[in-house]
Amino acid sequence: MKHKYLNNIPLDEAKRTYYEHLKNAGFGCSSETVAVTGACGRIIKNASYAVICSPHYNASAMDGIAVDSRITFGASEKTPVTLEPADYTVVDTGDPIPDDCDAVIMVEDLIETGENKLQIISAVSPWQNVRQVGEDICMGDMIAPSGTELTASLCGALLAGGITEVEVIKKPLVGIIPTGDEIVAPTSAPKKGDIIEFNSTVFTGMLDKFKADSKIYPITPDNKELLNIAVKTALSECDIVLVSAGSSAGRDDYTSDIISSLGTVLVHGIAIKPGKPAVLGEAKGKPIIGIPGYPVSAIVIMDEIVGDVISVYYGKERANGETVKAVLSKKIVSSLKYNEFIRVSLGRIGGKISASPLSRGAGVITSFTKADGILQIPQNCEGIEAGKEVEIHLSRPLCEIEKTLIITGSHDPLIDEVTDILSKKGFPFRVCSTHAGSMGAIYAVRDGLAHMGGIHLLDTETGEYNTSYIDKYIPSENATAVRGVGRVQGLMVKKGNPLGIKEFSDITDVRYVNRQRGSGTRILCDYLLEKNGISPEEINGYGNEEFTHTAVAALIAAGNADAGLGIYSAAKMYGLDFIPVCNEKYEFLIGKEYLEDPMVKAFLEVLYSEKFKARLEEMGGYTEA
Amino acid sequence: MKHKYLNNIPLDEAKRTYYEHLKNAGFGCSSETVAVTGACGRIIKNASYAVICSPHYNASAMDGIAVDSRITFGASEKTPVTLEPADYTVVDTGDPIPDDCDAVIMVEDLIETGENKLQIISAVSPWQNVRQVGEDICMGDMIAPSGTELTASLCGALLAGGITEVEVIKKPLVGIIPTGDEIVAPTSAPKKGDIIEFNSTVFTGMLDKFKADSKIYPITPDNKELLNIAVKTALSECDIVLVSAGSSAGRDDYTSDIISSLGTVLVHGIAIKPGKPAVLGEAKGKPIIGIPGYPVSAIVIMDEIVGDVISVYYGKERANGETVKAVLSKKIVSSLKYNEFIRVSLGRIGGKISASPLSRGAGVITSFTKADGILQIPQNCEGIEAGKEVEIHLSRPLCEIEKTLIITGSHDPLIDEVTDILSKKGFPFRVCSTHAGSMGAIYAVRDGLAHMGGIHLLDTETGEYNTSYIDKYIPSENATAVRGVGRVQGLMVKKGNPLGIKEFSDITDVRYVNRQRGSGTRILCDYLLEKNGISPEEINGYGNEEFTHTAVAALIAAGNADAGLGIYSAAKMYGLDFIPVCNEKYEFLIGKEYLEDPMVKAFLEVLYSEKFKARLEEMGGYTEA
Repeated sequence: MKHKYLNNIPLDEAKRTYYEHLKNAGFGCSSETVAVTGACGRIIKNASYAVICSPHYNASAMDGIAVDSRITFGASEKTPVTLEPADYTVVDTGDPIPDDCDAVIMVEDLIETGENKLQIISAVSPWQNVRQVGEDICMGDMIAPSGTELTASLCGALLAGGITEVEVIKKPLVGIIPTGDEIVAPTSAPKKGDIIEFNSTVFTGMLDKFKADSKIYPITPDNKELLNIAVKTALSECDIVLVSAGSSAGRDDYTSDIISSLGTVLVHGIAIKPGKPAVLGEAKGKPIIGIPGYPVSAIVIMDEIVGDVISVYYGKERANGETVKAVLSKKIVSSLKYNEFIRVSLGRIGGKISASPLSRGAGVITSFTKADGILQIPQNCEGIEAGKEVEIHLSRPLCEIEKTLIITGSHDPLIDEVTDILSKKGFPFRVCSTHAGSMGAIYAVRDGLAHMGGIHLLDTETGEYNTSYIDKYIPSENATAVRGVGRVQGLMVKKGNPLGIKEFSDITDVRYVNRQRGSGTRILCDYLLEKNGISPEEINGYGNEEFTHTAVAALIAAGNADAGLGIYSAAKMYGLDFIPVCNEKYEFLIGKEYLEDPMVKAFLEVLYSEKFKARLEEMGGYTEA
Repeated sequence: MKHKYLNNIPLDEAKRTYYEHLKNAGFGCSSETVAVTGACGRIIKNASYAVICSPHYNASAMDGIAVDSRITFGASEKTPVTLEPADYTVVDTGDPIPDDCDAVIMVEDLIETGENKLQIISAVSPWQNVRQVGEDICMGDMIAPSGTELTASLCGALLAGGITEVEVIKKPLVGIIPTGDEIVAPTSAPKKGDIIEFNSTVFTGMLDKFKADSKIYPITPDNKELLNIAVKTALSECDIVLVSAGSSAGRDDYTSDIISSLGTVLVHGIAIKPGKPAVLGEAKGKPIIGIPGYPVSAIVIMDEIVGDVISVYYGKERANGETVKAVLSKKIVSSLKYNEFIRVSLGRIGGKISASPLSRGAGVITSFTKADGILQIPQNCEGIEAGKEVEIHLSRPLCEIEKTLIITGSHDPLIDEVTDILSKKGFPFRVCSTHAGSMGAIYAVRDGLAHMGGIHLLDTETGEYNTSYIDKYIPSENATAVRGVGRVQGLMVKKGNPLGIKEFSDITDVRYVNRQRGSGTRILCDYLLEKNGISPEEINGYGNEEFTHTAVAALIAAGNADAGLGIYSAAKMYGLDFIPVCNEKYEFLIGKEYLEDPMVKAFLEVLYSEKFKARLEEMGGYTEA
């Protein structure tokens, strides 16, 4: 069990050192010539100059007749001019104007007087209704400078300017080598200990956005010799090589050794979190990068380093992307040792945009799927207080974020089901739902951080749901609870109930899994404990907190715990036994000013629809509220 | 010469009618099942639920040893706990935790004491350093609702959730039929009257952004029978058919007749400009759309109608895209008959974003290549005054627009050349240069609409350049002229000078082509006329105004005019003879507050570089200023 220590080089320094080295090592693009008809999205190597004018002849801009404008001079209603057939040439839009003509009269302005004679009652001026040579593009004009990305209309302009082929920068080919004994190809039935290899799919999608092609090599086991061969092969076939996982300093981490033997390791260990154990190396003038195995760390390194490296390849400084100012909804504590990359969800509620930090675990890829943006906390900063304005790098366009219904509160899969029905109906907004518990809903709606949120808060004195909490925490003119569903809460236990749990008080004898503080289910748990005269200390696992019903069910199914409170649908999903404990009123708390918001209205419309009731029945454990 | 009149249906009504009809005709998507590893960017048909948890077993989150946490309780510096080999299992990050363990101790926290015994000085709590089952994703959780576009990280999350295949919406195949007797495939040497077929390339690029595939059919001549066959073929092979050109009511416009014979024409003629003569039809439940031939009209119809139709296919309301508020820099007059789509360039100067209308010609595709956004003027609006705030639909991300050096003023190809050198150096900003003449530069810099602009303004009294104009129009603390180049102005005439023009005063006998009012070259022309005692009325073509030196040269080369004033490099490019008239001082006027702007500094650095001097020499006609 040897342990090598990594460096902790500041991100900026790591980047500077690495990119300088790559440039000096001759790393950069090559080019190829392609047809303009297939060049959309490509980046041109050199400036493109028109080789012909567009139009390249004097063209009629209308359907009508071409004339010498001088013969029309003086035409008016009182003194119409009659044109003999010899005076004009019939032209359609786009037709060339005869050399002795310099104007076109629109067909709408012609009066037929028989024998192909035409009368006009107003004159045309020279070059009227004619697209003169070069009106759009003049031969010799630069259509686009070097390094321009060809848009659809630019391809059109190049073709209009007589350019049929264009030299474009060859997309770099990035070789991806997944490594690790435990890594297996994607499967729906992995064996215990198998790690599903999905990072290469994530990389491929990201590389495509970076304008790079990718080639995924077979999974290489933790064997130095085999990995060495794989890296050499990729190095000979690709422009950039990524070694996925094996970048840390654990016993099987050969990447940095192999890069050292083939070339140079510039950086091993960057002062960022997640993403620290990256290896930045070079061999034969090509970058070899060791990417950490945790998906979130991997994505950060892809974004921060590999994206930049591809910009170095293209010879362009990388654009920063869109940012937005937002108000931080929760305090964040950060380490002074690292530059931290926090995934946040964003929402515009009322006038301001708020940013809510998502899970910080390096293994939680769903923190990226949910992320609307990234908040960077500098290395020398201990954290940021709630309510502070922060700058967020956007992961999706602001206009999408603006059209997001924000639901923060108690977890129930029904929110996802309503969202799905909305999606199927083609509604043009997103739903962003965060599991923050019922009390989380109260605070979020009160503080203008959410449009609405699910609540099921038992008043332990009256046995009533929700009302007393709302009255206590929110001025009544600010929010309203609307009808949701009734649902059964109960104890979830292993199939067959091997420990013979009969009622809530039996949990003193088993390993319990709890819900987080502030959740309605936790409040129910605490109420039941008190009612049964049980103190939390008597419960093994009281401090083991999860955020969703399914997470509790999953742990019971896996054997990490024996019992936990949750809703019937979660127990059913995991094939668990279910001991009903109570029926509760799950409602939606809505900020008053959003009651008429079209997003909220659309949500409620689905919530009360027959289609949705059918889904609830399928899930089980729900009643009409 | 028959003329059919088109309808003039308001855009909203046309859209509503058409999309309703398409939905009722059963137009919509089909789906296919693809591997998740290749599904990035695709749109899922149904909600995706995880089929396994991620992690699907309790996994070590660290390199270290797995233990039963209870044996570590009480460990401290004073009372270290020693672990026997039987107490622990060595685990790497990602390894499964043995069933009898519930925590991992990091390798960094272990003290080796020999004989495989390990000492620890602090306890671990249950599940510490363990990624419990479902930490990221719980089996049964909805990973994404129907209609979600799969991002790279979503593909990762699907694979992590055990989903290896996914039902996605099949991309629609759009058949494009280019039509017209005069239409030819892209070429650098078209014959007179040939129209280069580039619209299908533009469409293909746009369709790709709309998530549609395209198939371009051979060019079909203006023959009703052949076009009928082509449309039928495309209809049988594709989901949507576009007939390019032939949508108007001219003598060769068969599209609407053919659609009528196969199905229904819903709309022929929309109250928009450009784009009016579109045909919106349906046959066999598939849209057939007649697209106008002018590229700008075509792009508007593609954007407004075809993009929507593809959204109808996908069953999703179309997102509106990003907009920005901007101040209109110039008055726009608009027709009450049409909803107008004005291409604008945008620039952030100081605090505000200004929008400058680009060429409104339907044939000017470069108005789209230069456009940063589109301004819609409603049908019932006569126009918009300069200085008004308007809403612009962005064509490129705002962050790109913010990083744009805006140069408005006198035309000289040298600006493009400097831009190209900047691009080659990898500078991360765009240059947007507008030809508005030297006086345009004075006004634009004064009014904060441009960072800088080229000027060559002859003071006809003193013979000096630029200074007196700046003194007159701009407070001296607001702008400064910096050194540019010297250049030769002269009369451009046909090769061999067939009309024997010797000096400026000879232009009274020929067809002249002028520059626009406010341009330095126009001021020079007027000065020379006055000096020679010639009145503008004596000049044939005095009112024929062009905006660039190359445009003047192109018209002389094409025979539309015999002579015009311009710079040597333009004459050289077109193989024209050049009769020098004077040397002038071409300078750059810069807003004082932008003298230190990094974009302006980078521009000037290149302007004064040896590399640029070499380019000037190649172009010819320049001297050091």
